[in-house]
Amino acid sequence: MSDTVVVGLDVGGTSTRATALTLAGERLGTGKAGGGNPTSHGAERAAAEVLTALRAALADVDPARVAAGTIGLAGAPRLLADPAGRAAFDGAWHDAGLRCPYAVHGDALVAYASGTAEPDGTILIAGTGAITAQVVDLRLDRVADGHGWLLGDAGSGFWLGREAVRRLLADLDTGHTPGRLGAAVLTELVGSADVAPRPRDTVDATIQAVTRRPPIDLARLAPLVVTAATDGEPVATALIAEAAAHLAESVTRIRPPESTTPVVLGGGLLIADTPLATAVRAEIGRRWPTAPLRIAGDGAAAAAWLAARDLPEVTDPAALHTLLFPAP
Amino acid sequence: MSDTVVVGLDVGGTSTRATALTLAGERLGTGKAGGGNPTSHGAERAAAEVLTALRAALADVDPARVAAGTIGLAGAPRLLADPAGRAAFDGAWHDAGLRCPYAVHGDALVAYASGTAEPDGTILIAGTGAITAQVVDLRLDRVADGHGWLLGDAGSGFWLGREAVRRLLADLDTGHTPGRLGAAVLTELVGSADVAPRPRDTVDATIQAVTRRPPIDLARLAPLVVTAATDGEPVATALIAEAAAHLAESVTRIRPPESTTPVVLGGGLLIADTPLATAVRAEIGRRWPTAPLRIAGDGAAAAAWLAARDLPEVTDPAALHTLLFPAP
Repeated sequence: MSDTVVVGLDVGGTSTRATALTLAGERLGTGKAGGGNPTSHGAERAAAEVLTALRAALADVDPARVAAGTIGLAGAPRLLADPAGRAAFDGAWHDAGLRCPYAVHGDALVAYASGTAEPDGTILIAGTGAITAQVVDLRLDRVADGHGWLLGDAGSGFWLGREAVRRLLADLDTGHTPGRLGAAVLTELVGSADVAPRPRDTVDATIQAVTRRPPIDLARLAPLVVTAATDGEPVATALIAEAAAHLAESVTRIRPPESTTPVVLGGGLLIADTPLATAVRAEIGRRWPTAPLRIAGDGAAAAAWLAARDLPEVTDPAALHTLLFPAP
Repeated sequence: MSDTVVVGLDVGGTSTRATALTLAGERLGTGKAGGGNPTSHGAERAAAEVLTALRAALADVDPARVAAGTIGLAGAPRLLADPAGRAAFDGAWHDAGLRCPYAVHGDALVAYASGTAEPDGTILIAGTGAITAQVVDLRLDRVADGHGWLLGDAGSGFWLGREAVRRLLADLDTGHTPGRLGAAVLTELVGSADVAPRPRDTVDATIQAVTRRPPIDLARLAPLVVTAATDGEPVATALIAEAAAHLAESVTRIRPPESTTPVVLGGGLLIADTPLATAVRAEIGRRWPTAPLRIAGDGAAAAAWLAARDLPEVTDPAALHTLLFPAP
């Protein structure tokens, strides 16, 4: 048993991470490569990044020792439905010297498994976008939001950025001097917090600065909201409360009212100690007072754990999880 | 004086209309041409449509009789600031045989003047987009919203369409069967109101149907909301109330609380007898109980009236306005 190794991959839009583990929870190697999301980058490119990360993780490991593997990535159902995409990933797996089978799971399931070993619960992710899913027997079940910036992702980084600009434009319309958040947004967008003698000129410059870039780039303003809320700025504080309510509402769409299963918080806006994370914890705690709240951790290790728990020699997957993700 | 003629043009994104009038309010001719907005179509194309409309309106009129003219169009300040755009419009004016000067005004001012002869008041327009402006001495003064679909236009046709899809997606997330509005939206977008056995498949198909087209095309769903609200459908009724509140809020940004000047309602969603128009009237009436509420009418005639009222021989512009826009 001590010879057996599992590998896990967490394939994200901006980076791909791989981890090789023994069944005793010992990390034998890790690897990192570029963004490998097959939806945004194409399956060939994604498979190439997976291979790079795998080779780094297995640099000091005999691939014949690897008994199982899991790849977590966004858009997993699409990959599984596409023979060419599947073939590209099969090729990368083989080129890394691996002969064992591997499973493909959605990134939301991997994020969930990085926060808890419980088979049933809820994962709530807020980063650039926002999505919630119910997990049943460590499979993704019902999903809420994740509808993209045009139609949804309420409470996400995009949403916070867009709403911060909307509040700024309303202030300019009304003739109010922008507050601290508005001034920070204005400076980021047009280089100065000064309002033109005709405020409509500042409105037009703000709109042009936003529309020159892809809409999703509004998410880059989210840290300004988080910082301002941390300093107690009232507009930012109100936006954070509204975002938390949206995120909790999306959980309400799919999580039973009396559920006592864990809720795992993931995504850049919820894994750090931000006012949004605090507000979301409060909202979740109010609706599900007995739900354990967990924070998503190392996705590649969680993917490896998902691979390990299906092996016959792993009799206590929860114990292995505790080894990999010790309580803080 | 009876020989004197004025011309007015209302240049919109989808059509351009021209009217030639005597100072006694007699319509001598009208013309129609394609969309001529210089911002969306380029100044040359816009000027060509203006010429077509002008020639039709002046078919039975000696151009030497024309003493003044006004062109109303969106983005008027941009046109006036651009020598090439101004030259293209000068050329069209000249090619139509006109030797008098002409003025250029924003389409919002022309819409305002089509509803009232009062020099001071408010214009609120809701069509594909939404914008509000204060009018002072028949000039546009402060403006609220009109920020475009990504950042504003709250309560517009785009807004209604997007919110209708968002409510549908929330129902699908929750596992609720879509109501009458949701069914109508689903049928328009994916060809059937049936929800797939896995509702997330219907969610994905809906999102794909929306994102295949430019975002602004969501405005085409607004009539579904209006129709459903007319039939008392609860989701549509709630959306209409929310849209009316947004539109009234944008008026609040710029109109003084105690103002008794008229409020003119314009744009496709407010000039017809729709539930949105009714709700907006109620919101405005609640906040400004003594404000006369008017409906925007023929923009080309209003543009001609704006041209006429500056002529020395027009001693009673309000009387001419009454002739042109008799009370219903």
